[in-house]
Amino acid sequence: MVPLSGGNKVKAGIIGGAGYTGGELLRILVNHPSVEIAFIHSNSNAGNYIYEVHTDLFGDTDLKFTGEYNFNIDVLFLCVGHGDARKFLAANPFPASVKVIDLSQDFRHSEKASISYDTTQNSQPTTRNFIYGLPELNREAIKTADNIANPGCFATCLQLGLLPLAANNTLNSEVHITATTGSTGAGQSLAATSHFTWRNDNLSVYKVFDHQHLTEIRQSLTQLQHNFDQEVNFIPYRGDFTRGIIASMYLNSDLSAEEAVKLYTDYYAGHPFTHVTTRNIDLKQIVNTNKCFIQVQKKGNKLFIISIMDNLLKGASGQAVQNMNLLFGLEETAGLKLKAVAF
Amino acid sequence: MVPLSGGNKVKAGIIGGAGYTGGELLRILVNHPSVEIAFIHSNSNAGNYIYEVHTDLFGDTDLKFTGEYNFNIDVLFLCVGHGDARKFLAANPFPASVKVIDLSQDFRHSEKASISYDTTQNSQPTTRNFIYGLPELNREAIKTADNIANPGCFATCLQLGLLPLAANNTLNSEVHITATTGSTGAGQSLAATSHFTWRNDNLSVYKVFDHQHLTEIRQSLTQLQHNFDQEVNFIPYRGDFTRGIIASMYLNSDLSAEEAVKLYTDYYAGHPFTHVTTRNIDLKQIVNTNKCFIQVQKKGNKLFIISIMDNLLKGASGQAVQNMNLLFGLEETAGLKLKAVAF
Amino acid sequence: MVPLSGGNKVKAGIIGGAGYTGGELLRILVNHPSVEIAFIHSNSNAGNYIYEVHTDLFGDTDLKFTGEYNFNIDVLFLCVGHGDARKFLAANPFPASVKVIDLSQDFRHSEKASISYDTTQNSQPTTRNFIYGLPELNREAIKTADNIANPGCFATCLQLGLLPLAANNTLNSEVHITATTGSTGAGQSLAATSHFTWRNDNLSVYKVFDHQHLTEIRQSLTQLQHNFDQEVNFIPYRGDFTRGIIASMYLNSDLSAEEAVKLYTDYYAGHPFTHVTTRNIDLKQIVNTNKCFIQVQKKGNKLFIISIMDNLLKGASGQAVQNMNLLFGLEETAGLKLKAVAF
Amino acid sequence: MVPLSGGNKVKAGIIGGAGYTGGELLRILVNHPSVEIAFIHSNSNAGNYIYEVHTDLFGDTDLKFTGEYNFNIDVLFLCVGHGDARKFLAANPFPASVKVIDLSQDFRHSEKASISYDTTQNSQPTTRNFIYGLPELNREAIKTADNIANPGCFATCLQLGLLPLAANNTLNSEVHITATTGSTGAGQSLAATSHFTWRNDNLSVYKVFDHQHLTEIRQSLTQLQHNFDQEVNFIPYRGDFTRGIIASMYLNSDLSAEEAVKLYTDYYAGHPFTHVTTRNIDLKQIVNTNKCFIQVQKKGNKLFIISIMDNLLKGASGQAVQNMNLLFGLEETAGLKLKAVAF
Repeated sequence: MVPLSGGNKVKAGIIGGAGYTGGELLRILVNHPSVEIAFIHSNSNAGNYIYEVHTDLFGDTDLKFTGEYNFNIDVLFLCVGHGDARKFLAANPFPASVKVIDLSQDFRHSEKASISYDTTQNSQPTTRNFIYGLPELNREAIKTADNIANPGCFATCLQLGLLPLAANNTLNSEVHITATTGSTGAGQSLAATSHFTWRNDNLSVYKVFDHQHLTEIRQSLTQLQHNFDQEVNFIPYRGDFTRGIIASMYLNSDLSAEEAVKLYTDYYAGHPFTHVTTRNIDLKQIVNTNKCFIQVQKKGNKLFIISIMDNLLKGASGQAVQNMNLLFGLEETAGLKLKAVAF
Repeated sequence: MVPLSGGNKVKAGIIGGAGYTGGELLRILVNHPSVEIAFIHSNSNAGNYIYEVHTDLFGDTDLKFTGEYNFNIDVLFLCVGHGDARKFLAANPFPASVKVIDLSQDFRHSEKASISYDTTQNSQPTTRNFIYGLPELNREAIKTADNIANPGCFATCLQLGLLPLAANNTLNSEVHITATTGSTGAGQSLAATSHFTWRNDNLSVYKVFDHQHLTEIRQSLTQLQHNFDQEVNFIPYRGDFTRGIIASMYLNSDLSAEEAVKLYTDYYAGHPFTHVTTRNIDLKQIVNTNKCFIQVQKKGNKLFIISIMDNLLKGASGQAVQNMNLLFGLEETAGLKLKAVAF
Repeated sequence: MVPLSGGNKVKAGIIGGAGYTGGELLRILVNHPSVEIAFIHSNSNAGNYIYEVHTDLFGDTDLKFTGEYNFNIDVLFLCVGHGDARKFLAANPFPASVKVIDLSQDFRHSEKASISYDTTQNSQPTTRNFIYGLPELNREAIKTADNIANPGCFATCLQLGLLPLAANNTLNSEVHITATTGSTGAGQSLAATSHFTWRNDNLSVYKVFDHQHLTEIRQSLTQLQHNFDQEVNFIPYRGDFTRGIIASMYLNSDLSAEEAVKLYTDYYAGHPFTHVTTRNIDLKQIVNTNKCFIQVQKKGNKLFIISIMDNLLKGASGQAVQNMNLLFGLEETAGLKLKAVAF
Repeated sequence: MVPLSGGNKVKAGIIGGAGYTGGELLRILVNHPSVEIAFIHSNSNAGNYIYEVHTDLFGDTDLKFTGEYNFNIDVLFLCVGHGDARKFLAANPFPASVKVIDLSQDFRHSEKASISYDTTQNSQPTTRNFIYGLPELNREAIKTADNIANPGCFATCLQLGLLPLAANNTLNSEVHITATTGSTGAGQSLAATSHFTWRNDNLSVYKVFDHQHLTEIRQSLTQLQHNFDQEVNFIPYRGDFTRGIIASMYLNSDLSAEEAVKLYTDYYAGHPFTHVTTRNIDLKQIVNTNKCFIQVQKKGNKLFIISIMDNLLKGASGQAVQNMNLLFGLEETAGLKLKAVAF
């Protein structure tokens, strides 16, 4: 556990607070029992009330966005675009004592999981090393990490559906995955594919077999099953809903249904947010929570798995807070017992 | 009936063919038995296939957008933005023999319902006069008109709910209207209020008591009931669907239920698209058709009316074709017996 | 404050735990810091896990529905249908020491706000008197109440939009209200108007001027403004979303915009869930929270008010917990700082 | 071409006219230039106007449902449930001169594609033989058929995505299919999975690898490629929209992208409703039309195909009319040039 700068509470700063992941982080942190928000940085919204952008927070907080920030914090959340996180850290040398949780993809791949720069304190370059922040994969390493690379949304959903197999060296055939994401997965910017008139009642496929999260996924599977060399065929869909990812996956397997369920259940024992079932699941069961549900069934010689989670929570800001909790020795579920929207 | 330039078919040109009303017009005209499409003008899409923009038309037509146009047509549809229709006509002097059907608001108000300009043929200024193209109000005038100002979507829906009262001088108390429109009413441009993430499952109010269509509405009501001077309170809502407008309206009335229903039924007798009922109606009944359904009931001393129609069809391009049919002596319903989407 | 049977926690029993309001209550109570759930009664689901019905609660609780109940509780929530609450209490004589919070309409009207019956303890009839549980109207009375009649969903939304006017005797003209509710307002039973194929992308009107909640509303308005005798015209709509109510209301008013905003702001000062603004609001801002947002504006001589809230939370189970908090001297917001779904 | 009983028009009778496929058939037939509707049978709605059930048809037709039917027709559409079509024909011996188009699955499989019964005319048993009515597979046989077994909705969508490969004996590896259907695919009856509150914004998987349409699909693929023996893995999803099916499919293939596109384009040349493209497609492009769009691309060694169509039109009633057109020598597209809803 880390000594905290601000007494009993973790002092948190947020860079990029006006986007979706920044807003979602704020929705969690304003009610987190062990966090004090030090600043919420936004270039475009400096001086505005938080609730002018995240309008649902009206009545919950009178915090404002700032155009400045300071180093007197325990943790820095980076909620900026891909590529911008690395640039920000290079240009803004926070002291090494400040832990960084980055929600972009900049530090997720092991060969890019560090950054070196001069700090203001001295001329010795500081090197920040990032741990891939998937608690169901790296919980012990996260607890003692200096910095966290928060996983991607599809990456989280798909890994949680496959990790138990890799951990038991049973990923021995081609994997077939189709997964559909809500519109918040595409962020706040206006685009033809996020126009209501187009997207309502519509489904479409994109980045067939080429989604950028496949790299993270293979990295984690190989971490557990060193000889893993099977193809992972992944078809992403744009869904006509705002939140959530549902992934269906299958592969040939020698495991019986009972063996598979036991293997999954054992793997996730002690992990408070990921739950295994043989009941039918549907996307909305986990929307607005930090949970992931995994349904396991055997059909013929195929193991069939469904994984569902909220892309902005377990797939982004919720998992970031989960990582923060682990980093600072808090209860893993602190601030994350969220009421599901359910309907 | 007008002699046609192209033999048996009306030759039609379209300006602004890449927008929503242009696309909807094309969807109708490609199957219209008495129309030949001469050109579909679009500055931004010149040279592209129609189906590259209106992707559902793939397989139905190999027409392309053009950057040019010619005068060898019978009718010109203007599907450009408000203000641009007047500018276009001033800058592009089509001969007077070409009838113009303008879908913008530029010529809807009687005091602005004309434009004068020099034609290429001679130096005498040509004056185009526009008839307000609501067949249920002006059918006979439309048949002999030179040019048509096609009504607004809310304006059509609300007028059809009130015209029979005005025609009988029974609009003698304040009118209260709430109406909700689909997202296509806001056009193709990307905006915060048409972002799927925002609009899905959402409702919001805008332009309270100030909607620009109120002017058209008052003009028509006064045309029928000269002494009409009551307030018309109109609250527009943005709906979380793509097509359709549902309006509920009420006012104090001395009419009995039977008298009111008879008055509405009589008024719309012979009008093929507007139908009166005492059954409960719901928005989707008319989506993707040119029809308007009107439900009439009496509750206490109040007359309560619901009016539903498709904003892009009866509220825009469908009505434009209906006007074209009347202008050229075709069957009023030609090309407009559209299959409802129903669900 | 009431001495609690179970030590530091309020022991709660729930009757009718398998419906929407029962489920929503459970979603709150499983994370409430000062509540212990004693039993969740359901005839149809006795013996089943809670999460077999409220599937989102999988992983959160291993509680089961019971077919029985006991008297060793502090508070009983009745989540049964209209009419069934009164019957249940008559047939199941809980001791007077158990406070009842009834979510049905059975005890909302002052002339029906009590029930007398024999308890098992003695032959003296017990009389339960119910306070109308709208904290923004009756907070002090609620704190010392024995039993609570929880308000209806539309009733809450509409009252919160009008109470400040009544409290200042400024409800002096006819009121015009249109309000749209999500599908959960119609409960769990299958019906033609809750069939997805019908309701998706659809809007419809029902119970014009006749909604049963008007009685509650008039009762509260008259409680504050004794001479209130104006018509309240209320048009309910069925919306194509699951959660939330948005109401727009207007009336003639002599108040200036500033006076109106001040009047509303003053009235709700100190009420933690109801917030007044002059910014534009939209339905989703409050979905999955216990909050109500009220937008106030003046247009000409009309005061125009929008009120939004979640029908299942502030309009039902959230308000029930708010009432429980007040009844037992807990923080009014305990367990109710809910993360908005926001999108 | 068949001599028609009613002069120039095909006289059509409908059994089961009150369901979704019956309604959709009526929406087409009321505007079909060469059809006269003889009767629309419905036990539950006899005597009611068509528009009391199919409410969008108000204003289009004054036809009523009947509880009786007669033999003086050219074609009988059976829009009843699976199993009921066979029972109906056995119990109601229409003369052999009446062609039957059955929309159920009762006669789709070759080993069950006939029925024998005694007619009222004589004691010789009549045998009706059914041709599987997928025009893109069996057009010539359909033209001379006596009776048609109209394909299933998923079956049509998936076959159209795979037939060109089978026709060229290039279906030589396992096939992986995920397809999502709208709620109308589940019919009119109320069910938990068609409840708006549950289905809105939700996705779920059902009948994994076990969907009943797989039998039809394999039958057709084997008809074209006799040695076809590969696994077809099909994962059906329930979508949160009302109309349409989108299927994504892939398999290992030696074909180049160009070869594949040519093979598909050649196969569908001359078929007026099925169109091949290399552009990205999305579900809504075909909603409310009888068209099927097929996108073909090659990714690595995999051929990736997307197929979209409207489950109620090309997947049911539209295809039934297409079959009727072929049976009676009409233009294949007669009555089926439907305006897409597009948005």
